[in-house]
Amino acid sequence: MTTHDRAAAVWNDVQAIRAQAPLVHNITNYVVMNTTANALLALGASPVMAHAEDEVEEMAGIARALVLNIGTLSAPWVEAMIKAGRVACRNGCPIVLDPVGAGATRFRTVTAQRLLHEAPPAIIRGNASEIRALAGAERGTKGVDSTHGSEEALGAAQALAKDYRCAVTVSGATDLIVSESAVIRVSNGHPMMPRVTGLGCTATALTGAFAAVNPSPQLAAAHAMAVMGIAGEIAAARSEGPGSFQVNFLDALFLLDESDIRGRLRMEEA
Amino acid sequence: MTTHDRAAAVWNDVQAIRAQAPLVHNITNYVVMNTTANALLALGASPVMAHAEDEVEEMAGIARALVLNIGTLSAPWVEAMIKAGRVACRNGCPIVLDPVGAGATRFRTVTAQRLLHEAPPAIIRGNASEIRALAGAERGTKGVDSTHGSEEALGAAQALAKDYRCAVTVSGATDLIVSESAVIRVSNGHPMMPRVTGLGCTATALTGAFAAVNPSPQLAAAHAMAVMGIAGEIAAARSEGPGSFQVNFLDALFLLDESDIRGRLRMEEA
Amino acid sequence: MTTHDRAAAVWNDVQAIRAQAPLVHNITNYVVMNTTANALLALGASPVMAHAEDEVEEMAGIARALVLNIGTLSAPWVEAMIKAGRVACRNGCPIVLDPVGAGATRFRTVTAQRLLHEAPPAIIRGNASEIRALAGAERGTKGVDSTHGSEEALGAAQALAKDYRCAVTVSGATDLIVSESAVIRVSNGHPMMPRVTGLGCTATALTGAFAAVNPSPQLAAAHAMAVMGIAGEIAAARSEGPGSFQVNFLDALFLLDESDIRGRLRMEEA
Repeated sequence: MTTHDRAAAVWNDVQAIRAQAPLVHNITNYVVMNTTANALLALGASPVMAHAEDEVEEMAGIARALVLNIGTLSAPWVEAMIKAGRVACRNGCPIVLDPVGAGATRFRTVTAQRLLHEAPPAIIRGNASEIRALAGAERGTKGVDSTHGSEEALGAAQALAKDYRCAVTVSGATDLIVSESAVIRVSNGHPMMPRVTGLGCTATALTGAFAAVNPSPQLAAAHAMAVMGIAGEIAAARSEGPGSFQVNFLDALFLLDESDIRGRLRMEEA
Repeated sequence: MTTHDRAAAVWNDVQAIRAQAPLVHNITNYVVMNTTANALLALGASPVMAHAEDEVEEMAGIARALVLNIGTLSAPWVEAMIKAGRVACRNGCPIVLDPVGAGATRFRTVTAQRLLHEAPPAIIRGNASEIRALAGAERGTKGVDSTHGSEEALGAAQALAKDYRCAVTVSGATDLIVSESAVIRVSNGHPMMPRVTGLGCTATALTGAFAAVNPSPQLAAAHAMAVMGIAGEIAAARSEGPGSFQVNFLDALFLLDESDIRGRLRMEEA
Repeated sequence: MTTHDRAAAVWNDVQAIRAQAPLVHNITNYVVMNTTANALLALGASPVMAHAEDEVEEMAGIARALVLNIGTLSAPWVEAMIKAGRVACRNGCPIVLDPVGAGATRFRTVTAQRLLHEAPPAIIRGNASEIRALAGAERGTKGVDSTHGSEEALGAAQALAKDYRCAVTVSGATDLIVSESAVIRVSNGHPMMPRVTGLGCTATALTGAFAAVNPSPQLAAAHAMAVMGIAGEIAAARSEGPGSFQVNFLDALFLLDESDIRGRLRMEEA
């Protein structure tokens, strides 16, 4: 596949999201609810945040993707995630799991592993430390920021992809998007991105929107990371710091066009 | 009433809010807590967010408006809303209800209808789908975004206004502000506004600030929608996308002056 | 100590934070989780938000500062704060307490006083009304905004500093940073700052980052207020309102250099 073809495929998904405005149901953390909802809207999707056990099944039942993010988890939220996950599974609605802080506390690691079984994801997206912790290869990460480069989690991602038959995104300077049989690398993005809280969570949320329109989990995940990275590059070029970056990032997602993707995409498969 | 008189009345309320900085107690959703607090501060009001059953009665007791928003509701929050609502009622403190996502799940529809009875609002503000669902005219809306134009909810709004003796705002490209006997239409605003999460919730929060200074629920609601729409127009004119829009919207609320209102107001009564 | 020496000491702490990226564990309110995480990241620290009783002890155990903020408190969160606080105490990890809205409701006042005993802070930061309420000198404040100038809380701050052997910051147009034996005054800042929600909470969060690198609670607190105020001045000079201020504030924190501090610092000890 040429880069031109890959760019066309990314753009095709962006157009589908804009045309269909798929409903993406998020059970996510308090820190990023606003920013991920805004990113989904800027991209063209229709976000909804709902976590009460009284309604998650019904909400998941009308959604086209379900995003589960354990960033500020607590016991009742985990139960709601599992309830929503069961409905999503039954409906063929793709689940995207973000194991925020797996490895930092036992509660997070155990919960993320429980979700792998009880709400089987189509796609997992985490940083290298989280993916390693999820695969049992790591303990004691420092909070929610990664202490490893993405390549250091390649083996862990491949193991998860095989064991749980899903795609796994390891985000970092180069993002790895791993299936049982292939690895796609996306090298878009900018060093300012880790200085904004929750951009990893935003990547996960956008992955949900792509999974709603693209039946291949690995391609959906790769296209989402490409769009994240490209919008990040466009935003960083006009920003002085992480404040203006956030503003410009939403504008860039909203304004993203085919030539941006064609001119900037750095995606390759190995 | 001439447009000039209407503009003067809107401006009068803005000045009163700025002079009095009324305390607006919000029991609202996680997604918009930050943005609605900032909008209230930019306008000149004093927001407080408090949801614990241990304190909502006391907080509602010192507030000049109570905003109830079910955007990320759960059972304990609903009980807190009812507790706070009882105090507000007893004190003559106006309640503004935002039935976010009514129609999308049974839990939301039932809760919103329960609040109509147990925390009777002076003003309800929702999009067309929510107002139709609240009036029992609709089921199965898609998440929290409207699938109807505002005029399609006119009958539902009039029924609610009559049954619950309150004003009802249906927001949309043209906002309807409905009482038992009259309909005010506000046509300010900009198509970029639905691309920012929670601007409907912001409209509800600002409605609370106007209700704190204007004894007429319908006029308070109409003035709030006018200010929302005018600030939105000013912001959109200098924004490239929904990121810069949010920044410029808060600046516009903060800087809003009489000439902005006089030059832009599009409000009429039928 | 000359102003030049003081500026060097502030800059020394900023450099230490940037070099070490200390993990700051926040159990804070919903309104400011995103904005305080972003401020900590912009400064160079590594924030984590975690509130579940299942994990707070473990998270506090790896943190270098613990920030407790009661802005949207509820009973289970208070228990989590106490659990985390015990671990922090045992580890010599400094606790920073923000008694948001103490005085506005009995629940807040009692909880803040309980935290003084059960999770003894190295530093308390509040506005004048909150500090007065915490010291038992005040009741019935209006919501979460102060109705007093900072000097009116000097006696209360000194009493708290003595009784609880901690530093106390009273923020206002001039910030007081009080120990048992000395008062530091910081006069940096800008009148637009109270028009942005949660900047007080941001001051508290940044105080946590400074406490992680500076063993003197009073100096850590004073340096944090200086950096807040200086970044605020830089931001305000290029902002039209509270929307652009927030963006520019994060950029200013990120870009802050030694000459900004040297040129602007207004700190004196009495």
